[in-house]
Amino acid sequence: MTDKKYKEIAELGEFGLIDHLTEGIKLKHKSTIHGVGDDAAVLNYGNKMLVVTTDLLLEGIHFNLIYTPLKHLGYKAVVVNLSDVYSMNAIPKQITVSIGVSGKFAVDHLDELYEGIKLACEVYNVDLVGGDTSSSLTGLVISITALGEATKNKFTLRSTAKKNDIICVTGNLGAAYMGLQLLEREKEVFKSTKGAQPNLEGYDYILQRQLKPEARKDIIELLNDINVIPTSMIDISDGLSSEMLHICKNSDVGCKIFQNKIPIDLNTEKMAREFNIEPLIAALNGGEDYELLFTVNVTDFEKIKNQPLIHPIGHIISKENGTVFITESGHSIELQAQGWNPLKKK
Amino acid sequence: MTDKKYKEIAELGEFGLIDHLTEGIKLKHKSTIHGVGDDAAVLNYGNKMLVVTTDLLLEGIHFNLIYTPLKHLGYKAVVVNLSDVYSMNAIPKQITVSIGVSGKFAVDHLDELYEGIKLACEVYNVDLVGGDTSSSLTGLVISITALGEATKNKFTLRSTAKKNDIICVTGNLGAAYMGLQLLEREKEVFKSTKGAQPNLEGYDYILQRQLKPEARKDIIELLNDINVIPTSMIDISDGLSSEMLHICKNSDVGCKIFQNKIPIDLNTEKMAREFNIEPLIAALNGGEDYELLFTVNVTDFEKIKNQPLIHPIGHIISKENGTVFITESGHSIELQAQGWNPLKKK
Repeated sequence: MTDKKYKEIAELGEFGLIDHLTEGIKLKHKSTIHGVGDDAAVLNYGNKMLVVTTDLLLEGIHFNLIYTPLKHLGYKAVVVNLSDVYSMNAIPKQITVSIGVSGKFAVDHLDELYEGIKLACEVYNVDLVGGDTSSSLTGLVISITALGEATKNKFTLRSTAKKNDIICVTGNLGAAYMGLQLLEREKEVFKSTKGAQPNLEGYDYILQRQLKPEARKDIIELLNDINVIPTSMIDISDGLSSEMLHICKNSDVGCKIFQNKIPIDLNTEKMAREFNIEPLIAALNGGEDYELLFTVNVTDFEKIKNQPLIHPIGHIISKENGTVFITESGHSIELQAQGWNPLKKK
Repeated sequence: MTDKKYKEIAELGEFGLIDHLTEGIKLKHKSTIHGVGDDAAVLNYGNKMLVVTTDLLLEGIHFNLIYTPLKHLGYKAVVVNLSDVYSMNAIPKQITVSIGVSGKFAVDHLDELYEGIKLACEVYNVDLVGGDTSSSLTGLVISITALGEATKNKFTLRSTAKKNDIICVTGNLGAAYMGLQLLEREKEVFKSTKGAQPNLEGYDYILQRQLKPEARKDIIELLNDINVIPTSMIDISDGLSSEMLHICKNSDVGCKIFQNKIPIDLNTEKMAREFNIEPLIAALNGGEDYELLFTVNVTDFEKIKNQPLIHPIGHIISKENGTVFITESGHSIELQAQGWNPLKKK
């Protein structure tokens, strides 16, 4: 239906498109505390805060069934939603799961998918409370909505980082992206070489990060235990750069991030070198890490500085001073995110 | 991927598949009052009850862009979800909207879709609070989740109809299905006859019922005004027969429905005759009416009997006496629902 006179979606990019489509939406209900524009909406249904988030996973865009076991896919589909709940400093409680299935699927395949979905519900202690099932003319469609509980004055938005706050990231970055590169490579080898078997030995860590990622439930529990409420938080689904710029844009601040502080696992680094990819690029733009990126007040620095899972990588500066990335050699460059492009599977 | 040894989805049908996939799910949270198996889940986030429902709409399965204006599609996509909230005797408050868009879409097309979505939000007084946007390799995918507020002891399940309750249906049935037949016919004429223009004049009512249905907000308000709490309720998305059997199965009861009580609009009847379809078949199995089917205690009969929008069509009997349909000529036959088949678009 695209015609010359129409505006192409690529002109706006994903986030531009969302801004465009949700422009001018006015919230009507007292129970809507926070709407479009964060990892989850925040609603108030009584004396507790409710967060709601939803994700759409489409075959060929978000996953490739050639190398994705259905059980892992089901698990991951839940985890990516829970990650959005955790990033609000909330505890996920319920999910709904809608699936559209094409003719090539049998019940047994859906059983595998649901095995993964149910396993994630067990591991993360959430209830599967509903959904929708449909046939699909094309590929597999998975749409999950997660609901969670937050405490008043404790949920964390993207828009509330303040100057001088410490920027922290959890775990390590870029592994899921390198796992994807490996799977794509082995798929090509398999297609072009008759009888070739995928060579995936010794790559367990990055494969798991790609195929069966975990959400950072542990970090939310840890932050609660050490009595730290981040001043802002987001989960890393599109790469560190993109998420950091979301926080800066929404909080109307700038940032300074140091290359030598960015946590990259040795397995990620090794794999990146094999692919002639700069490990830093995987960490900054790779996506699908489902780590948490958050800011804390400087007064909380003592509480986090010795936590092995939390890495301070920089600090918030004023908007006028920009979004700055300091390289290992001490050069200052502008932090940039890639747009809606094939690199970011999302 | 289907292989001889696998169980085909068609063997189970849609509802059998849902039962199968959600078998053995144990609810863990106090805040989960009611999970899988109704129009919406019921959750408790404080002193109010929250209902959650979700629907997946796929191009080629649930809608055909050849004859569905995008604005109407957006409107309908919201309405079908709100209908599920109303059927819980709840008031919708928020929705999330996820869309997957194929390359043939331009921003302008999404603008039209969102115009309809936003219009429905205005008309039904709900907030659009979030969602997800993705590219799709194939057709348009729309996944909407609706949240609403219910009062304790006032929300209505499918599973609580009691013997002797009066069975009621709102508005009239079968119109949306006849609207679909008309659109399909004109599509074929258009395809086979060069230059043919669709002949849709004089069919406004059934076309609107198909393309721009409304959810029965008015009925929920009316029931509240006249102080009637249905003993069970469901919205009619798959046809009266199917929904009635859901109530019977879930409530462990039978029913007796009278053909001469079933409300069918004159426009529906006229169109059905033109197609050589028995109007009753459209009413019983057509689907997409988004009317409400509910039961009330006999003591409430006085309150509803003179309401022009509410039609008593029979009553609940014991399970042992079956699900009975009494024809105009007084014959008693078993009420049957069609399975997951092409007649039922949804």
